[in-house]
Amino acid sequence: MENESTKKWGFQVHQRFKTESAITLRAALTSLTENIDQNDSRPTIPLGHGDPSVFPSFRTANVVEDAIIDAVRSTKFNCYVPFFGILPARRAVADYLNRDLPYTLSPDDVYLTLGCKQAITVILSVLLRPGANILLPRPGWPYYETFTRQNNVEARLFDLLPEKGWEVDLDAVEALADKNTVAMVIINPGNPCGNVFTYQHLQKIAETARKLRIMVISDEVYDHLTFGNTPYVRMGVFGSTVPVITLGSISKRWIVPGWRLGWLVTCDPNGILQKSGVGFSLHLALNLSIDDICHVCCRNPEIYAPNFTCQVVDSIKEYINITSNPAATLIQGAVPQILEKTEEAFYSKIIDILRVAADICYNRIKEIPCIYCLNKPEGSMFVMVKLNPSLLEDINDDMEFCLKLAKEESVIVLPGIVVGMNNWLRITFAVEPSALEDGLGRIKAFYYRHAKK
Amino acid sequence: MENESTKKWGFQVHQRFKTESAITLRAALTSLTENIDQNDSRPTIPLGHGDPSVFPSFRTANVVEDAIIDAVRSTKFNCYVPFFGILPARRAVADYLNRDLPYTLSPDDVYLTLGCKQAITVILSVLLRPGANILLPRPGWPYYETFTRQNNVEARLFDLLPEKGWEVDLDAVEALADKNTVAMVIINPGNPCGNVFTYQHLQKIAETARKLRIMVISDEVYDHLTFGNTPYVRMGVFGSTVPVITLGSISKRWIVPGWRLGWLVTCDPNGILQKSGVGFSLHLALNLSIDDICHVCCRNPEIYAPNFTCQVVDSIKEYINITSNPAATLIQGAVPQILEKTEEAFYSKIIDILRVAADICYNRIKEIPCIYCLNKPEGSMFVMVKLNPSLLEDINDDMEFCLKLAKEESVIVLPGIVVGMNNWLRITFAVEPSALEDGLGRIKAFYYRHAKK
Ligand SMILES: Cc1ncc(COP(=O)(O)O)c(C=O)c1O
Ligand SMILES: Cc1ncc(COP(=O)(O)O)c(C=O)c1O
Repeated sequence: MENESTKKWGFQVHQRFKTESAITLRAALTSLTENIDQNDSRPTIPLGHGDPSVFPSFRTANVVEDAIIDAVRSTKFNCYVPFFGILPARRAVADYLNRDLPYTLSPDDVYLTLGCKQAITVILSVLLRPGANILLPRPGWPYYETFTRQNNVEARLFDLLPEKGWEVDLDAVEALADKNTVAMVIINPGNPCGNVFTYQHLQKIAETARKLRIMVISDEVYDHLTFGNTPYVRMGVFGSTVPVITLGSISKRWIVPGWRLGWLVTCDPNGILQKSGVGFSLHLALNLSIDDICHVCCRNPEIYAPNFTCQVVDSIKEYINITSNPAATLIQGAVPQILEKTEEAFYSKIIDILRVAADICYNRIKEIPCIYCLNKPEGSMFVMVKLNPSLLEDINDDMEFCLKLAKEESVIVLPGIVVGMNNWLRITFAVEPSALEDGLGRIKAFYYRHAKK
Repeated sequence: MENESTKKWGFQVHQRFKTESAITLRAALTSLTENIDQNDSRPTIPLGHGDPSVFPSFRTANVVEDAIIDAVRSTKFNCYVPFFGILPARRAVADYLNRDLPYTLSPDDVYLTLGCKQAITVILSVLLRPGANILLPRPGWPYYETFTRQNNVEARLFDLLPEKGWEVDLDAVEALADKNTVAMVIINPGNPCGNVFTYQHLQKIAETARKLRIMVISDEVYDHLTFGNTPYVRMGVFGSTVPVITLGSISKRWIVPGWRLGWLVTCDPNGILQKSGVGFSLHLALNLSIDDICHVCCRNPEIYAPNFTCQVVDSIKEYINITSNPAATLIQGAVPQILEKTEEAFYSKIIDILRVAADICYNRIKEIPCIYCLNKPEGSMFVMVKLNPSLLEDINDDMEFCLKLAKEESVIVLPGIVVGMNNWLRITFAVEPSALEDGLGRIKAFYYRHAKK
């Protein structure tokens, strides 16, 4: 026994984990959070995140809560379900998108996912072969780049142009693409920019992608959260020009990001994706355990339509590495009611709050000389503002700004560097209006304390 | 434009998907399902799966449904939450396990996951470095082997011994282990065997693992679903002998597998895992998006205890490949009530149903000469029976048996080959009792039709 206890245990940590944890946002965000002064008696103002769900003004609709309760009481949604979702939920998502499209999607075009995030994981996993590259927006949502790079695939960044209302630099897109480019990603309404693309600009994106023979992945997680002059148009409207993969979720419009229910939809009336094998691969990427399979075949035919079984069966295979878990059945069961029954009044209440919040944000930022907002946000929950460190005494960049702001004012703002833009800040206005006023007031005070004399 | 339309699109399917889909259970299970005769007016009897939730007798407890409703109405559980779970839920899981352990786990030992399945994914991802190997039971739950092999790590199979009540062949374990062995997996109560390990046998497993310097991963997804003579003992009871990782979920005992809520718990009172860096890696494997992080720091301090923030922050990093999604917050919010408030009456009702079903199954199998059950099941929802094809006219193996059974009798039974045992069958008895009688009756009729004259 003596001998034994000195012997090393056989399990050691996979080296990967140790090394990769070094090269990340970690240092940045760790410091931000740790920098908050525990002795500050004021509440922390979180202007860094995209989740207003805890604020009373942003409580989800009653009908959304009721949808869950109905799903629980029905006892139909406790079981394992097929990987890409139950038919009524997929049909509800298809119908939901169809309201905005010039052609008709079927439930078979829809794959349910664990939030929009898993939809991203799935489409990137399916597309990214070694040697391929993908075009991503800068600034953007960091997960795209993170995932791409970690799979040893090249991410090529095209700029969004602040002086053109954050439109895509299409010349850059053309210059970056080559024969190994598989897709370009857009986020509309935009995170982090709060911009909304016009019909005309989306059309140009479609034409450019068509010319380059790449598909468009359109992240519409903030769909319909628009409150400016530009009407909301889905990229899928141009699905006949170029194959479009639309990504979305209930996280933002219904303000339940913790429920982890999203979708990936092929908007491709010409069937180009199917011919390229992309449809097939999606089936493979979202797959099943044997228990799921055994059960799919025999029960609930009214829920899992007859031809669904064949599809499931078509896609059974063992490659479970990418994604092994469907969204909770219970939430899937609530989706039809959520998408079909939410009242217009709820949507417009939230839009009104966001519009007012965006106004407050825009106007109060004007009072703070060191930050500058070129474009009043028209959508999503964010605005990108340019930081001018030369007006500040002892602050040299966005990171330093955010760190000191957290420490001195207990206000969290995201440094632009995190989303790809040095010396910008991303500010969320989707917080309780009183907290927004408070937070922007503290930023102003912070500026005056640090302003060059 | 002519020119353009003949040009190939840049996206082609990742080759991986095409090849790996070939080498799977796919052919087997596809055929099984497709083999059901659509003209059979009788209901299909699903004796292949481990999900009785759709049967009225197996409806979950009222208090479980109420827990979700309370969580929805509280509006506290709509938000993004930290990757490894909210504190009250982790505390509830720790308390739940503590009832069966001689030492006290803290919430920090608990990581919430998307069902037990993601718990498996996480622990394997953390442990499996290139060159490592892991010891898995045969028969077993196929996901362990699938995941291991797809990550190019060696799975070494030790036998469970039918003639010893499916105990682990510990001599085989010793013979298989070498200096690159990281862990051995046990499933207790057993899937597919329906066995329950005794205290004495678990102790021997612990001593063997200690001698080999490997940890024990104990899959307890069927915990407390025991109805025979062997009392249920957790592997974690021997956590001072050898570090134990306990995996579990609410899927089986509470019969809500679709809710995707599980856990991974380090049962390691001596802190050996922490010293080996395993604890740290777990933090890394289960991580966050930037929005999650921004929000963790500032809100709901009563839910996300103060020191939780530091833990989260400690583990932020970009390696999101393995698992990028936590269990739905809403379900996490219901966990304390589910684990603490479910009445004894519900548990014992389910146990009684399973006991009766196991009896029916065992007795009816005795009436079918070509299948043989060595061990009456004492736990879980399954029994493994040996098939003797030499008694059958035109059936040569388990696969053929199951295919013809599906076609002729609309009864689904899992071929043993799928769980690693040629010419065995795995039969589920967790179905509505009437369906079980019906299904076993059909198997008997099937036998007599195919019996050698
Ligand atoms: C642009 C963008 N895409 C995707 C997501 C992920 O959304 P979900 O919570 O539905 O996974 C977010 C979340 O903030 C986002 O901002
Ligand atoms: C042995 C075993 N482990 C893990 C799981 C997965 O359980 P969960 O549904 O909680 O992910 C199952 C499901 O059948 C199982 O049988």
